[in-house]
Amino acid sequence: MLTNRLTQLAGAMAEHQLDVVVVVPGANLRYLLNVSFHPSKRLTLALFRRDGGRPSIVIPTLELQGVHEHLGDVADAYQWTDSEGPSSALLEALEQVLPAQRARVAVEHTVMRVMELRALEDAGRQLGVQLEIVDATPLLARMRMVKDVHELAAMAEAARIVEAALGKTIAQIKPGITERQLSLICTQEIMAAGAEGESFGNLIASGPNSANPHHNVSDRAFQPGDLIVLDCGAIYRGYASDITRTVALGEPTPGARAMYDAVLKANTAARDFVRPGVTGEQIDQVARGIITAAGYGDYFLHRTGHGLGLEINPCHEPPDLVARSTEPLAVGTTFTIEPGVYIQGVGGVRIEDDVVITEAGCRSFTTFQRELLVVPS
Amino acid sequence: MLTNRLTQLAGAMAEHQLDVVVVVPGANLRYLLNVSFHPSKRLTLALFRRDGGRPSIVIPTLELQGVHEHLGDVADAYQWTDSEGPSSALLEALEQVLPAQRARVAVEHTVMRVMELRALEDAGRQLGVQLEIVDATPLLARMRMVKDVHELAAMAEAARIVEAALGKTIAQIKPGITERQLSLICTQEIMAAGAEGESFGNLIASGPNSANPHHNVSDRAFQPGDLIVLDCGAIYRGYASDITRTVALGEPTPGARAMYDAVLKANTAARDFVRPGVTGEQIDQVARGIITAAGYGDYFLHRTGHGLGLEINPCHEPPDLVARSTEPLAVGTTFTIEPGVYIQGVGGVRIEDDVVITEAGCRSFTTFQRELLVVPS
Repeated sequence: MLTNRLTQLAGAMAEHQLDVVVVVPGANLRYLLNVSFHPSKRLTLALFRRDGGRPSIVIPTLELQGVHEHLGDVADAYQWTDSEGPSSALLEALEQVLPAQRARVAVEHTVMRVMELRALEDAGRQLGVQLEIVDATPLLARMRMVKDVHELAAMAEAARIVEAALGKTIAQIKPGITERQLSLICTQEIMAAGAEGESFGNLIASGPNSANPHHNVSDRAFQPGDLIVLDCGAIYRGYASDITRTVALGEPTPGARAMYDAVLKANTAARDFVRPGVTGEQIDQVARGIITAAGYGDYFLHRTGHGLGLEINPCHEPPDLVARSTEPLAVGTTFTIEPGVYIQGVGGVRIEDDVVITEAGCRSFTTFQRELLVVPS
Repeated sequence: MLTNRLTQLAGAMAEHQLDVVVVVPGANLRYLLNVSFHPSKRLTLALFRRDGGRPSIVIPTLELQGVHEHLGDVADAYQWTDSEGPSSALLEALEQVLPAQRARVAVEHTVMRVMELRALEDAGRQLGVQLEIVDATPLLARMRMVKDVHELAAMAEAARIVEAALGKTIAQIKPGITERQLSLICTQEIMAAGAEGESFGNLIASGPNSANPHHNVSDRAFQPGDLIVLDCGAIYRGYASDITRTVALGEPTPGARAMYDAVLKANTAARDFVRPGVTGEQIDQVARGIITAAGYGDYFLHRTGHGLGLEINPCHEPPDLVARSTEPLAVGTTFTIEPGVYIQGVGGVRIEDDVVITEAGCRSFTTFQRELLVVPS
């Protein structure tokens, strides 16, 4: 599987006339080499060659031990200690992969930090090679957007886990419980259900707080009449799920029901619309059109969804379900569908599912009840 | 308090001849403006002016709501929506703060991503201003290294919380429990003890795994004779604690005891050595000298410690306790002291405390038993 991915990368590098692709710890490195690292200030870089030859990895000695057994099978290590610093190891590794005089090098704009970029630039200068540095993100994103059967199975399990936890979490909602208390319960239930971790710090937003799509969990206690947005996810074999449901604590107002109905219709219509060849923009238009027609267009503050897979916070995967996302999507592409309406001072509603494009249209990994759940108050 | 920090920043900018300091979401932004953001692919930048005037912040509309109430007090917002993209907002904000023709701009090399750097460079080109971009990390790190009384109180509480959790976690160690099970227990105990979160994913390394200082938690079950390294931390009011203790499950071998004694002596001597004016290099030399004299010099794989405060993974704070860290440290500087010995195939020991330099010498926030704890097997 990894060999296939490296072959595919070499092909893409030839197509884009790239000499080297430089990948830092994160989802792309995990995808390409099946190695994970603790994120760190210590320089760690993998260098992928255009000829498809063995990649090189510049790595702190401290980290090498953790990945050593596996890493030796897939890459050559250039290690450095805290007392040496990384410069020599980087020079030695780069010298092996850079062509003379000038090189086209792709780096991950949305992941690589300025410190790694400057280290590469300095090394290029020292080696007398002029580097043209371009963005590797589109190339790597395209590779990762369509999932294989193993990836889809992991995502289905990640969805199953989070839904089991979500049910148990919602069952513990009652007046007087705080957002922070429920957030902790949610974390515990996700871990108890078999997750490797949470996809992101879960979000519990109640009452007026639900009007903020990125609310930070607070000590607000639930009150009868609240809408409560629960947004959470589980990691399984590195792959993430991401689900949102909005419940009412006691009978909601007619206004809240109307908001909910608009969001549910948008969620349903968007899922029904998905089929091979649709674009992110089209799916967004379908969901946004329904919400706008219901009179809430100005309150749908974000895109309709984002890609999903190995990548979790802080960086979503492509595709984006948003205006100008005009690439036709293929079978096997996975993303969220999560329309929402947020009215300051009133409250908010979001309903989020994780789906994959199939030959027949759309399969949703998440199947948790979408009709409004009214918790007794 | 924040006003003081902005005044101090303006002074440092004048000293370093900087026109603008650009800060992305993270510890520095929290320190300077007391605002936190979800990390995101959406461009979010704060621009600090040399004249000490109100900072500007380029921010997705989606995020603005969460910080709006507070942000309006401290900064001017330049917002952008997903459909607009960030370019216009960034241009408008930069135009207000950049001098004509050329500007010296400092960015955080260890935090800012290439995407933000490129956005700045593009905006500079469009405005016809030549940007000289330098590293802001040393300047900001120096400001943050010495803590005020509020910060020290938060760190003491973060230490108290993690020590309460550590005691309850160790009490649940017995043969047959796995690293992953104990890791989950540790997380739950940290949250139950009152943490806002964990400082980092806690590390539980047992038996041969303890020889890897950055072990990824596994499904290995504890066995009599194991050394078990527990490394964990709690966040309180944004400030982190970070503690490591190593316990034995059943009576350890004489070799394991000898390793432990060397590490404990190094930890104690390093703490005893700390006083105003010492350097990170000197503290490292004290700890390393003792471990080397005991014959384990080649097995002390990392620096003796790192700064601690708002910053958690992936980026430690200064100071580094390592060779070439030659700046004299002032009263109020906080860091870890964490010598360790790691022998492949045998096991490892680390003993980590969180300390602050005081007029009198050194105060350790962490006070959990340092003598070897032998858990009944």
